[in-house]
Amino acid sequence: MRDDAAVTVAVCQLAPVLGDVEGNVARALAAVAGAAAAGARLVVLPELVSSGYAFSGPDELARCAEPPGGPTVTRLAAAARAHGAVVVAGFPELADGGEMCNSAVLADPSGVRAVYRKAHLWDREKALFTAGSAPPAVVDTGVGRVGVMVCYDLRFPEWLRLATLDGAEIVCAPANWPAEPRTAGERPVEVVRLQASASVNHVYVAAADRVGRERGVDWVGGSAIVAPDGYPLAVADPARGEQLLTAECRPAAARDKRVSPHNDVLADRRLDLYG
Amino acid sequence: MRDDAAVTVAVCQLAPVLGDVEGNVARALAAVAGAAAAGARLVVLPELVSSGYAFSGPDELARCAEPPGGPTVTRLAAAARAHGAVVVAGFPELADGGEMCNSAVLADPSGVRAVYRKAHLWDREKALFTAGSAPPAVVDTGVGRVGVMVCYDLRFPEWLRLATLDGAEIVCAPANWPAEPRTAGERPVEVVRLQASASVNHVYVAAADRVGRERGVDWVGGSAIVAPDGYPLAVADPARGEQLLTAECRPAAARDKRVSPHNDVLADRRLDLYG
Repeated sequence: MRDDAAVTVAVCQLAPVLGDVEGNVARALAAVAGAAAAGARLVVLPELVSSGYAFSGPDELARCAEPPGGPTVTRLAAAARAHGAVVVAGFPELADGGEMCNSAVLADPSGVRAVYRKAHLWDREKALFTAGSAPPAVVDTGVGRVGVMVCYDLRFPEWLRLATLDGAEIVCAPANWPAEPRTAGERPVEVVRLQASASVNHVYVAAADRVGRERGVDWVGGSAIVAPDGYPLAVADPARGEQLLTAECRPAAARDKRVSPHNDVLADRRLDLYG
Repeated sequence: MRDDAAVTVAVCQLAPVLGDVEGNVARALAAVAGAAAAGARLVVLPELVSSGYAFSGPDELARCAEPPGGPTVTRLAAAARAHGAVVVAGFPELADGGEMCNSAVLADPSGVRAVYRKAHLWDREKALFTAGSAPPAVVDTGVGRVGVMVCYDLRFPEWLRLATLDGAEIVCAPANWPAEPRTAGERPVEVVRLQASASVNHVYVAAADRVGRERGVDWVGGSAIVAPDGYPLAVADPARGEQLLTAECRPAAARDKRVSPHNDVLADRRLDLYG
Protein backbone atom coordinates (compact mmCIF):
# COMPACT_ATOMS: atom_id res chain seq x y z
CA MET A 1 0.00 0.00 0.00
CA ARG A 2 1.29 3.47 -0.85
CA ASP A 3 2.38 5.23 2.26
CA ASP A 4 -0.22 8.00 2.11
CA ALA A 5 -2.95 5.90 0.49
CA ALA A 6 -6.53 6.34 1.62
CA VAL A 7 -8.78 3.37 2.20
CA THR A 8 -12.54 3.34 2.55
CA VAL A 9 -13.56 1.71 5.82
CA ALA A 10 -17.13 0.55 6.38
CA VAL A 11 -19.05 -0.32 9.49
CA CYS A 12 -22.32 -2.22 9.07
CA GLN A 13 -24.78 -1.74 11.93
CA LEU A 14 -27.10 -4.74 11.63
CA ALA A 15 -30.00 -6.40 13.48
CA PRO A 16 -29.24 -10.10 13.85
CA VAL A 17 -32.13 -12.41 14.72
CA LEU A 18 -31.44 -14.60 17.74
CA GLY A 19 -30.69 -18.17 16.67
CA ASP A 20 -31.23 -17.62 12.93
CA VAL A 21 -27.68 -18.40 11.84
CA GLU A 22 -28.54 -19.04 8.21
CA GLY A 23 -30.51 -15.81 7.85
CA ASN A 24 -28.00 -13.76 9.85
CA VAL A 25 -25.08 -14.90 7.73
CA ALA A 26 -27.02 -14.16 4.55
CA ARG A 27 -27.74 -10.66 5.81
CA ALA A 28 -24.10 -10.21 6.85
CA LEU A 29 -22.91 -11.24 3.39
CA ALA A 30 -25.37 -8.81 1.81
CA ALA A 31 -24.03 -6.07 4.05
CA VAL A 32 -20.45 -6.86 3.02
CA ALA A 33 -21.51 -6.74 -0.63
CA GLY A 34 -23.21 -3.39 -0.07
CA ALA A 35 -20.18 -1.97 1.68
CA ALA A 36 -17.87 -3.21 -1.08
CA ALA A 37 -20.16 -1.62 -3.66
CA ALA A 38 -19.72 1.64 -1.76
CA GLY A 39 -15.97 1.26 -2.20
CA ALA A 40 -15.06 -0.25 1.15
CA ARG A 41 -11.93 -2.38 1.40
CA LEU A 42 -12.29 -2.97 5.16
CA VAL A 43 -15.73 -3.96 6.47
CA VAL A 44 -16.59 -4.35 10.15
CA LEU A 45 -19.70 -6.28 11.29
CA PRO A 46 -21.17 -6.57 14.80
CA GLU A 47 -20.27 -8.95 17.61
CA LEU A 48 -21.96 -12.37 17.37
CA VAL A 49 -23.43 -11.32 14.04
CA SER A 50 -24.27 -14.90 13.05
CA SER A 51 -26.16 -15.79 16.21
CA GLY A 52 -27.61 -12.83 18.06
CA TYR A 53 -26.78 -12.22 21.69
CA ALA A 54 -29.41 -12.80 24.37
CA PHE A 55 -29.11 -16.57 24.68
CA SER A 56 -31.39 -18.32 27.17
CA GLY A 57 -28.41 -20.45 28.22
CA PRO A 58 -25.52 -22.59 27.03
CA ASP A 59 -27.72 -24.97 25.00
CA GLU A 60 -29.09 -22.20 22.84
CA LEU A 61 -25.60 -20.77 22.40
CA ALA A 62 -24.21 -24.23 21.52
CA ARG A 63 -26.71 -24.56 18.68
CA CYS A 64 -25.18 -21.41 17.09
CA ALA A 65 -21.50 -22.00 17.87
CA GLU A 66 -19.15 -23.13 15.11
CA PRO A 67 -15.44 -23.78 14.76
CA PRO A 68 -13.41 -21.36 12.61
CA GLY A 69 -13.60 -24.01 9.87
CA GLY A 70 -17.41 -23.98 9.97
CA PRO A 71 -19.79 -22.51 7.40
CA THR A 72 -20.10 -19.02 8.91
CA VAL A 73 -16.41 -18.19 8.86
CA THR A 74 -15.94 -20.00 5.55
CA ARG A 75 -18.66 -17.89 3.94
CA LEU A 76 -17.32 -14.64 5.42
CA ALA A 77 -13.84 -15.49 4.12
CA ALA A 78 -15.29 -16.24 0.69
CA ALA A 79 -16.96 -12.82 0.73
CA ALA A 80 -13.63 -11.19 1.61
CA ARG A 81 -12.07 -12.93 -1.38
CA ALA A 82 -14.96 -12.16 -3.73
CA HIS A 83 -14.93 -8.47 -2.87
CA GLY A 84 -11.17 -8.02 -2.44
CA ALA A 85 -11.83 -6.72 1.06
CA VAL A 86 -10.83 -7.29 4.65
CA VAL A 87 -13.82 -8.45 6.73
CA VAL A 88 -13.99 -8.40 10.54
CA ALA A 89 -17.02 -10.06 12.15
CA GLY A 90 -18.07 -11.56 15.45
CA PHE A 91 -19.32 -15.14 15.83
CA PRO A 92 -19.71 -17.68 18.65
CA GLU A 93 -16.74 -19.99 18.35
CA LEU A 94 -16.78 -23.65 19.27
CA ALA A 95 -13.20 -24.28 20.33
CA ASP A 96 -11.31 -27.55 20.11
CA GLY A 97 -11.89 -28.45 23.74
CA GLY A 98 -15.63 -27.92 23.42
CA GLU A 99 -15.64 -24.57 25.20
CA MET A 100 -17.30 -21.61 23.52
CA CYS A 101 -15.70 -18.23 22.94
CA ASN A 102 -17.06 -14.83 21.93
CA SER A 103 -14.78 -14.49 18.92
CA ALA A 104 -14.13 -12.28 15.93
CA VAL A 105 -12.64 -13.39 12.64
CA LEU A 106 -10.45 -11.26 10.40
CA ALA A 107 -10.49 -12.55 6.83
CA ASP A 108 -8.85 -11.00 3.77
CA PRO A 109 -8.70 -12.14 0.15
CA SER A 110 -6.10 -14.74 1.13
CA GLY A 111 -8.38 -16.36 3.71
CA VAL A 112 -8.78 -16.35 7.50
CA ARG A 113 -5.94 -14.34 9.02
CA ALA A 114 -6.94 -14.29 12.69
CA VAL A 115 -9.57 -15.51 15.10
CA TYR A 116 -9.58 -13.36 18.21
CA ARG A 117 -11.36 -14.41 21.42
CA LYS A 118 -12.88 -11.67 23.57
CA ALA A 119 -10.77 -11.37 26.71
CA HIS A 120 -13.07 -9.19 28.83
CA LEU A 121 -16.52 -10.77 29.14
CA TRP A 122 -19.65 -8.74 29.84
CA ASP A 123 -22.21 -9.72 32.46
CA ARG A 124 -23.91 -13.08 31.67
CA GLU A 125 -21.30 -13.84 29.04
CA LYS A 126 -19.21 -15.05 31.95
CA ALA A 127 -21.62 -17.96 32.38
CA LEU A 128 -21.63 -18.81 28.66
CA PHE A 129 -18.22 -18.15 27.19
CA THR A 130 -14.61 -18.90 28.00
CA ALA A 131 -12.55 -15.71 28.00
CA GLY A 132 -9.70 -15.38 25.53
CA SER A 133 -6.14 -15.67 26.76
CA ALA A 134 -4.30 -13.80 24.01
CA PRO A 135 -3.73 -10.10 23.30
CA PRO A 136 -5.73 -8.28 20.63
CA ALA A 137 -5.16 -9.66 17.15
CA VAL A 138 -3.08 -7.31 14.98
CA VAL A 139 -2.64 -8.28 11.34
CA ASP A 140 -0.85 -6.77 8.35
CA THR A 141 -3.36 -6.52 5.52
CA GLY A 142 -3.61 -4.85 2.16
CA VAL A 143 -5.35 -1.91 3.82
CA GLY A 144 -2.91 -1.36 6.67
CA ARG A 145 -2.18 -2.99 9.98
CA VAL A 146 -5.53 -3.90 11.51
CA GLY A 147 -6.30 -4.64 15.16
CA VAL A 148 -9.28 -6.65 16.40
CA MET A 149 -11.04 -6.62 19.76
CA VAL A 150 -14.65 -7.08 20.89
CA CYS A 151 -17.08 -4.76 22.69
CA TYR A 152 -16.32 -4.67 26.47
CA ASP A 153 -12.60 -5.10 25.65
CA LEU A 154 -12.73 -1.44 24.60
CA ARG A 155 -13.56 -0.39 28.16
CA PHE A 156 -10.00 -1.31 29.19
CA PRO A 157 -7.52 1.32 28.00
CA GLU A 158 -4.79 -1.25 28.51
CA TRP A 159 -6.21 -3.29 25.62
CA LEU A 160 -6.26 -0.67 22.91
CA ARG A 161 -2.84 0.46 24.11
CA LEU A 162 -1.55 -3.08 23.58
CA ALA A 163 -2.93 -3.14 20.04
CA THR A 164 -1.34 0.26 19.37
CA LEU A 165 2.03 -0.88 20.68
CA ASP A 166 1.72 -3.85 18.36
CA GLY A 167 1.41 -1.39 15.49
CA ALA A 168 -2.33 -1.36 14.85
CA GLU A 169 -3.35 1.55 12.63
CA ILE A 170 -7.07 0.78 12.41
CA VAL A 171 -8.64 -0.98 15.39
CA CYS A 172 -11.85 -2.83 14.49
CA ALA A 173 -14.33 -3.71 17.19
CA PRO A 174 -17.45 -5.75 16.64
CA ALA A 175 -19.81 -4.78 19.47
CA ASN A 176 -23.23 -5.41 21.00
CA TRP A 177 -23.75 -2.54 23.43
CA PRO A 178 -26.85 -3.03 25.58
CA ALA A 179 -28.66 0.28 26.03
CA GLU A 180 -28.11 1.80 29.45
CA PRO A 181 -29.44 4.99 31.05
CA ARG A 182 -27.90 8.12 29.64
CA THR A 183 -28.19 11.83 30.12
CA ALA A 184 -30.61 13.38 27.64
CA GLY A 185 -28.92 15.03 24.67
CA GLU A 186 -25.61 13.30 25.29
CA ARG A 187 -23.77 11.14 22.78
CA PRO A 188 -23.65 7.56 24.13
CA VAL A 189 -20.65 7.05 26.41
CA GLU A 190 -19.78 3.98 24.34
CA VAL A 191 -19.03 6.29 21.40
CA VAL A 192 -17.25 8.76 23.68
CA ARG A 193 -14.94 5.97 24.82
CA LEU A 194 -14.17 5.12 21.18
CA GLN A 195 -13.24 8.73 20.55
CA ALA A 196 -10.94 8.91 23.54
CA SER A 197 -9.35 5.55 22.69
CA ALA A 198 -8.55 6.76 19.20
CA SER A 199 -7.21 10.04 20.49
CA VAL A 200 -4.91 8.79 23.24
CA ASN A 201 -3.41 6.17 20.92
CA HIS A 202 -3.57 8.19 17.70
CA VAL A 203 -5.19 5.36 15.77
CA TYR A 204 -8.39 4.90 13.79
CA VAL A 205 -11.16 3.02 15.58
CA ALA A 206 -14.06 1.43 13.73
CA ALA A 207 -16.78 -0.15 15.86
CA ALA A 208 -19.86 -1.95 14.54
CA ASP A 209 -22.69 -2.03 17.05
CA ARG A 210 -26.08 -3.72 16.54
CA VAL A 211 -29.76 -2.81 16.74
CA GLY A 212 -32.94 -4.92 17.00
CA ARG A 213 -34.62 -5.62 20.34
CA GLU A 214 -33.87 -9.11 21.64
CA ARG A 215 -35.51 -10.68 24.73
CA GLY A 216 -36.06 -7.27 26.28
CA VAL A 217 -32.55 -6.02 25.49
CA ASP A 218 -32.24 -2.83 23.45
CA TRP A 219 -28.97 -1.65 21.98
CA VAL A 220 -27.14 1.62 21.77
CA GLY A 221 -26.80 1.52 17.98
CA GLY A 222 -23.57 3.43 18.52
CA SER A 223 -21.49 2.36 15.53
CA ALA A 224 -18.77 4.83 14.59
CA ILE A 225 -15.54 5.37 12.71
CA VAL A 226 -13.19 7.70 14.59
CA ALA A 227 -10.05 9.48 13.35
CA PRO A 228 -6.75 9.51 15.25
CA ASP A 229 -7.58 13.01 16.52
CA GLY A 230 -10.60 11.60 18.37
CA TYR A 231 -13.27 13.19 16.20
CA PRO A 232 -15.78 10.91 14.45
CA LEU A 233 -15.56 10.55 10.69
CA ALA A 234 -18.93 8.79 10.73
CA VAL A 235 -21.30 8.00 13.56
CA ALA A 236 -24.61 6.13 13.52
CA ASP A 237 -27.79 8.16 13.47
CA PRO A 238 -29.72 7.13 16.60
CA ALA A 239 -33.01 7.72 14.76
CA ARG A 240 -32.22 4.92 12.30
CA GLY A 241 -31.69 1.19 12.79
CA GLU A 242 -29.57 -0.79 10.39
CA GLN A 243 -27.12 1.42 8.55
CA LEU A 244 -23.89 1.49 6.62
CA LEU A 245 -21.22 3.99 7.68
CA THR A 246 -18.19 4.67 5.53
CA ALA A 247 -15.15 6.89 5.93
CA GLU A 248 -11.83 7.50 4.19
CA CYS A 249 -8.92 6.56 6.45
CA ARG A 250 -5.20 7.02 5.86
CA PRO A 251 -3.41 4.36 7.90
CA ALA A 252 -0.11 6.25 7.57
CA ALA A 253 -1.63 9.03 9.69
CA ALA A 254 -1.95 6.55 12.55
CA ARG A 255 1.70 5.56 12.33
CA ASP A 256 2.74 9.12 13.16
CA LYS A 257 2.26 9.56 16.91
CA ARG A 258 3.28 13.23 17.06
CA VAL A 259 0.62 15.52 18.49
CA SER A 260 2.72 18.70 18.84
CA PRO A 261 6.21 19.75 17.74
CA HIS A 262 7.57 18.18 20.94
CA ASN A 263 5.04 15.48 21.80
CA ASP A 264 4.49 11.88 20.77
CA VAL A 265 1.72 9.98 22.53
CA LEU A 266 3.76 6.82 22.80
CA ALA A 267 7.23 8.26 23.42
CA ASP A 268 5.83 10.58 26.12
CA ARG A 269 4.62 7.69 28.27
CA ARG A 270 6.36 7.59 31.65
CA LEU A 271 7.06 3.87 31.78
CA ASP A 272 9.34 4.51 34.75
CA LEU A 273 6.29 5.56 36.77
CA TYR A 274 3.49 3.28 35.62
CA GLY A 275 4.55 0.45 37.94
CA MET B 1 -17.75 11.85 55.91
CA ARG B 2 -21.00 9.86 55.86
CA ASP B 3 -20.71 7.05 53.38
CA ASP B 4 -23.40 8.32 51.02
CA ALA B 5 -22.79 12.02 51.63
CA ALA B 6 -22.91 14.42 48.71
CA VAL B 7 -20.35 17.14 48.28
CA THR B 8 -20.52 20.18 46.05
CA VAL B 9 -17.53 20.31 43.73
CA ALA B 10 -16.63 23.51 41.89
CA VAL B 11 -14.44 24.17 38.90
CA CYS B 12 -13.41 27.78 38.26
CA GLN B 13 -12.55 28.53 34.62
CA LEU B 14 -10.43 31.68 34.83
CA ALA B 15 -8.36 33.96 32.59
CA PRO B 16 -4.97 34.49 34.21
CA VAL B 17 -2.86 37.41 32.97
CA LEU B 18 0.65 36.39 31.96
CA GLY B 19 3.17 37.47 34.60
CA ASP B 20 0.68 39.24 36.89
CA VAL B 21 1.12 36.94 39.90
CA GLU B 22 -0.35 39.37 42.40
CA GLY B 23 -3.47 40.00 40.32
CA ASN B 24 -3.86 36.36 39.33
CA VAL B 25 -3.73 35.17 42.92
CA ALA B 26 -6.22 37.83 43.96
CA ARG B 27 -8.59 36.65 41.22
CA ALA B 28 -8.04 33.02 42.20
CA LEU B 29 -8.87 33.79 45.82
CA ALA B 30 -12.01 35.63 44.72
CA ALA B 31 -12.99 32.60 42.64
CA VAL B 32 -12.51 30.30 45.64
CA ALA B 33 -14.66 32.61 47.75
CA GLY B 34 -17.35 32.63 45.07
CA ALA B 35 -17.30 28.86 44.79
CA ALA B 36 -17.48 28.47 48.58
CA ALA B 37 -20.42 30.89 48.65
CA ALA B 38 -22.12 28.58 46.15
CA GLY B 39 -21.64 25.73 48.62
CA ALA B 40 -18.50 24.16 47.21
CA ARG B 41 -16.25 22.17 49.52
CA LEU B 42 -13.81 21.18 46.78
CA VAL B 43 -12.62 23.90 44.39
CA VAL B 44 -10.44 23.28 41.33
CA LEU B 45 -8.54 26.12 39.63
CA PRO B 46 -6.60 26.05 36.35
CA GLU B 47 -3.00 25.00 35.69
CA LEU B 48 -0.43 27.76 36.35
CA VAL B 49 -3.23 29.97 37.64
CA SER B 50 -0.82 32.34 39.37
CA SER B 51 1.40 32.99 36.37
CA GLY B 52 -0.26 32.41 33.03
CA TYR B 53 1.22 30.02 30.52
CA ALA B 54 2.84 31.37 27.36
CA PHE B 55 6.23 32.33 28.81
CA SER B 56 8.78 33.87 26.45
CA GLY B 57 11.43 31.71 28.10
CA PRO B 58 12.92 30.53 31.38
CA ASP B 59 13.62 34.04 32.71
CA GLU B 60 9.99 35.08 32.48
CA LEU B 61 8.94 31.81 34.07
CA ALA B 62 11.52 32.21 36.85
CA ARG B 63 10.04 35.58 37.79
CA CYS B 64 6.72 33.81 38.51
CA ALA B 65 8.00 30.61 40.12
CA GLU B 66 7.72 30.13 43.87
CA PRO B 67 8.48 27.40 46.37
CA PRO B 68 5.53 25.68 48.07
CA GLY B 69 6.27 27.88 51.08
CA GLY B 70 5.89 31.04 49.00
CA PRO B 71 3.07 33.55 49.04
CA THR B 72 0.89 31.96 46.33
CA VAL B 73 0.55 28.58 47.99
CA THR B 74 0.37 30.16 51.43
CA ARG B 75 -2.54 32.36 50.35
CA LEU B 76 -4.35 29.48 48.64
CA ALA B 77 -3.96 27.36 51.78
CA ALA B 78 -5.29 30.23 53.90
CA ALA B 79 -8.34 30.41 51.60
CA ALA B 80 -8.89 26.66 52.04
CA ARG B 81 -8.85 27.18 55.81
CA ALA B 82 -11.05 30.28 55.71
CA HIS B 83 -13.70 28.59 53.59
CA GLY B 84 -13.47 25.11 55.10
CA ALA B 85 -12.76 23.78 51.60
CA VAL B 86 -10.27 21.69 49.67
CA VAL B 87 -8.50 23.78 47.01
CA VAL B 88 -6.56 22.37 44.05
CA ALA B 89 -4.63 24.86 41.91
CA GLY B 90 -1.73 24.97 39.51
CA PHE B 91 1.36 27.14 40.01
CA PRO B 92 4.95 27.25 38.72
CA GLU B 93 7.05 25.67 41.45
CA LEU B 94 10.61 26.67 42.23
CA ALA B 95 12.07 23.44 43.58
CA ASP B 96 14.91 23.09 46.06
CA GLY B 97 17.51 22.45 43.42
CA GLY B 98 16.52 25.55 41.47
CA GLU B 99 14.63 23.64 38.79
CA MET B 100 11.08 24.65 37.95
CA CYS B 101 8.08 22.33 37.87
CA ASN B 102 4.56 22.68 36.53
CA SER B 103 2.92 21.84 39.84
CA ALA B 104 -0.47 21.71 41.53
CA VAL B 105 -1.11 22.17 45.21
CA LEU B 106 -3.86 20.48 47.19
CA ALA B 107 -4.67 22.40 50.36
CA ASP B 108 -7.41 21.71 52.88
CA PRO B 109 -8.36 23.45 56.12
CA SER B 110 -5.38 21.79 57.83
CA GLY B 111 -2.89 23.24 55.33
CA VAL B 112 -0.94 22.06 52.30
CA ARG B 113 -1.51 18.33 51.86
CA ALA B 114 0.27 17.67 48.57
CA VAL B 115 2.31 19.36 45.87
CA TYR B 116 2.12 17.34 42.67
CA ARG B 117 4.54 17.91 39.76
CA LYS B 118 3.21 17.35 36.24
CA ALA B 119 4.83 14.21 34.89
CA HIS B 120 3.88 14.50 31.21
CA LEU B 121 5.01 17.85 29.79
CA TRP B 122 3.35 19.48 26.79
CA ASP B 123 5.30 20.94 23.87
CA ARG B 124 7.52 23.88 24.92
CA GLU B 125 7.05 23.03 28.59
CA LYS B 126 9.84 20.51 27.99
CA ALA B 127 12.26 23.42 27.58
CA LEU B 128 11.01 25.22 30.69
CA PHE B 129 10.02 22.71 33.33
CA THR B 130 11.45 19.61 34.94
CA ALA B 131 8.97 16.73 34.74
CA GLY B 132 7.71 15.22 37.97
CA SER B 133 8.96 11.83 39.05
CA ALA B 134 6.12 10.72 41.31
CA PRO B 135 2.69 9.20 40.64
CA PRO B 136 -0.46 11.31 40.85
CA ALA B 137 -1.08 12.72 44.30
CA VAL B 138 -4.00 11.01 46.07
CA VAL B 139 -5.05 12.46 49.42
CA ASP B 140 -7.74 11.61 51.99
CA THR B 141 -9.70 14.77 52.66
CA GLY B 142 -12.92 15.76 54.38
CA VAL B 143 -14.69 15.49 51.01
CA GLY B 144 -13.38 12.10 49.97
CA ARG B 145 -10.18 10.72 48.53
CA VAL B 146 -8.96 13.26 45.99
CA GLY B 147 -6.48 12.70 43.17
CA VAL B 148 -4.44 15.42 41.47
CA MET B 149 -2.88 15.53 38.02
CA VAL B 150 -2.26 18.30 35.47
CA CYS B 151 -3.51 18.76 31.88
CA TYR B 152 -1.51 16.58 29.43
CA ASP B 153 -1.19 13.94 32.19
CA LEU B 154 -4.85 13.17 31.42
CA ARG B 155 -3.92 12.05 27.90
CA PHE B 156 -2.24 8.96 29.37
CA PRO B 157 -4.84 6.43 30.52
CA GLU B 158 -2.12 4.82 32.61
CA TRP B 159 -2.08 7.91 34.85
CA LEU B 160 -5.72 8.12 35.80
CA ARG B 161 -5.68 4.34 36.24
CA LEU B 162 -2.83 4.74 38.75
CA ALA B 163 -4.81 7.34 40.69
CA THR B 164 -7.86 5.07 40.67
CA LEU B 165 -5.85 2.11 41.92
CA ASP B 166 -4.61 4.36 44.71
CA GLY B 167 -8.25 4.90 45.68
CA ALA B 168 -8.99 8.31 44.17
CA GLU B 169 -12.72 9.02 44.11
CA ILE B 170 -12.57 12.51 42.61
CA VAL B 171 -9.68 13.27 40.28
CA CYS B 172 -8.94 16.98 39.99
CA ALA B 173 -7.03 18.31 37.03
CA PRO B 174 -5.90 21.89 36.62
CA ALA B 175 -5.48 22.39 32.86
CA ASN B 176 -4.49 24.88 30.16
CA TRP B 177 -5.68 23.31 26.91
CA PRO B 178 -4.46 25.22 23.86
CA ALA B 179 -7.20 25.38 21.24
CA GLU B 180 -6.61 23.00 18.34
CA PRO B 181 -8.58 22.34 15.16
CA ARG B 182 -11.80 20.50 15.76
CA THR B 183 -14.71 19.21 13.75
CA ALA B 184 -17.59 21.70 13.70
CA GLY B 185 -20.36 20.89 16.14
CA GLU B 186 -18.22 18.47 18.13
CA ARG B 187 -17.54 18.70 21.86
CA PRO B 188 -13.80 19.32 22.36
CA VAL B 189 -11.86 16.07 22.45
CA GLU B 190 -10.27 17.26 25.69
CA VAL B 191 -13.70 16.98 27.35
CA VAL B 192 -14.39 13.69 25.58
CA ARG B 193 -11.19 12.28 27.09
CA LEU B 194 -12.33 13.41 30.56
CA GLN B 195 -15.61 11.59 30.06
CA ALA B 196 -13.93 8.38 28.97
CA SER B 197 -11.40 8.60 31.81
CA ALA B 198 -14.17 8.89 34.36
CA SER B 199 -16.12 6.06 32.78
CA VAL B 200 -13.37 3.48 32.44
CA ASN B 201 -12.23 4.07 36.03
CA HIS B 202 -15.66 4.78 37.52
CA VAL B 203 -14.47 7.94 39.25
CA TYR B 204 -15.46 11.58 39.23
CA VAL B 205 -13.22 13.87 37.18
CA ALA B 206 -13.15 17.65 37.68
CA ALA B 207 -10.98 19.64 35.29
CA ALA B 208 -10.49 23.41 35.37
CA ASP B 209 -9.38 24.81 32.03
CA ARG B 210 -8.57 28.47 31.30
CA VAL B 211 -9.63 31.17 28.83
CA GLY B 212 -8.04 34.49 27.81
CA ARG B 213 -5.87 34.81 24.70
CA GLU B 214 -2.14 34.90 25.53
CA ARG B 215 0.63 35.61 22.99
CA GLY B 216 -1.49 34.23 20.18
CA VAL B 217 -2.58 31.14 22.11
CA ASP B 218 -6.31 30.55 22.53
CA TRP B 219 -7.73 27.97 24.87
CA VAL B 220 -10.42 25.35 24.68
CA GLY B 221 -12.30 26.63 27.71
CA GLY B 222 -13.29 23.01 28.26
CA SER B 223 -13.75 22.84 32.02
CA ALA B 224 -16.05 20.04 33.16
CA ILE B 225 -17.17 17.89 36.05
CA VAL B 226 -17.89 14.32 34.96
CA ALA B 227 -19.73 11.55 36.83
CA PRO B 228 -18.40 7.99 37.15
CA ASP B 229 -20.75 6.91 34.34
CA GLY B 230 -18.90 9.22 31.94
CA TYR B 231 -21.67 11.78 31.49
CA PRO B 232 -20.94 15.41 32.39
CA LEU B 233 -22.61 16.88 35.46
CA ALA B 234 -21.44 20.32 34.36
CA VAL B 235 -19.55 21.46 31.31
CA ALA B 236 -18.32 24.92 30.35
CA ASP B 237 -20.39 26.92 27.89
CA PRO B 238 -18.08 27.64 24.94
CA ALA B 239 -19.89 30.93 24.34
CA ARG B 240 -18.77 32.26 27.72
CA GLY B 241 -15.30 32.95 29.13
CA GLU B 242 -14.67 32.84 32.85
CA GLN B 243 -17.24 30.72 34.62
CA LEU B 244 -18.00 28.76 37.74
CA LEU B 245 -19.26 25.20 37.35
CA THR B 246 -20.65 23.25 40.29
CA ALA B 247 -22.00 19.74 40.71
CA GLU B 248 -23.08 17.43 43.50
CA CYS B 249 -20.79 14.42 43.74
CA ARG B 250 -21.10 11.34 45.95
CA PRO B 251 -17.60 9.97 46.47
CA ALA B 252 -19.02 6.65 47.70
CA ALA B 253 -20.39 6.07 44.19
CA ALA B 254 -16.83 6.09 42.88
CA ARG B 255 -15.73 3.47 45.38
CA ASP B 256 -18.18 0.98 43.87
CA LYS B 257 -16.61 -0.28 40.64
CA ARG B 258 -19.53 -2.51 39.60
CA VAL B 259 -20.98 -1.67 36.20
CA SER B 260 -23.26 -4.72 35.77
CA PRO B 261 -24.35 -7.59 38.00
CA HIS B 262 -21.21 -9.46 36.97
CA ASN B 263 -18.73 -6.72 36.08
CA ASP B 264 -16.30 -4.55 38.00
CA VAL B 265 -14.05 -2.25 35.98
CA LEU B 266 -11.04 -2.95 38.16
CA ALA B 267 -11.57 -6.64 38.95
CA ASP B 268 -12.24 -7.36 35.26
CA ARG B 269 -8.80 -6.20 34.17
CA ARG B 270 -6.75 -8.98 32.62
CA LEU B 271 -3.49 -8.30 34.38
CA ASP B 272 -2.21 -11.65 33.10
CA LEU B 273 -2.35 -10.27 29.56
CA TYR B 274 -1.31 -6.63 29.86
CA GLY B 275 2.40 -7.46 29.82
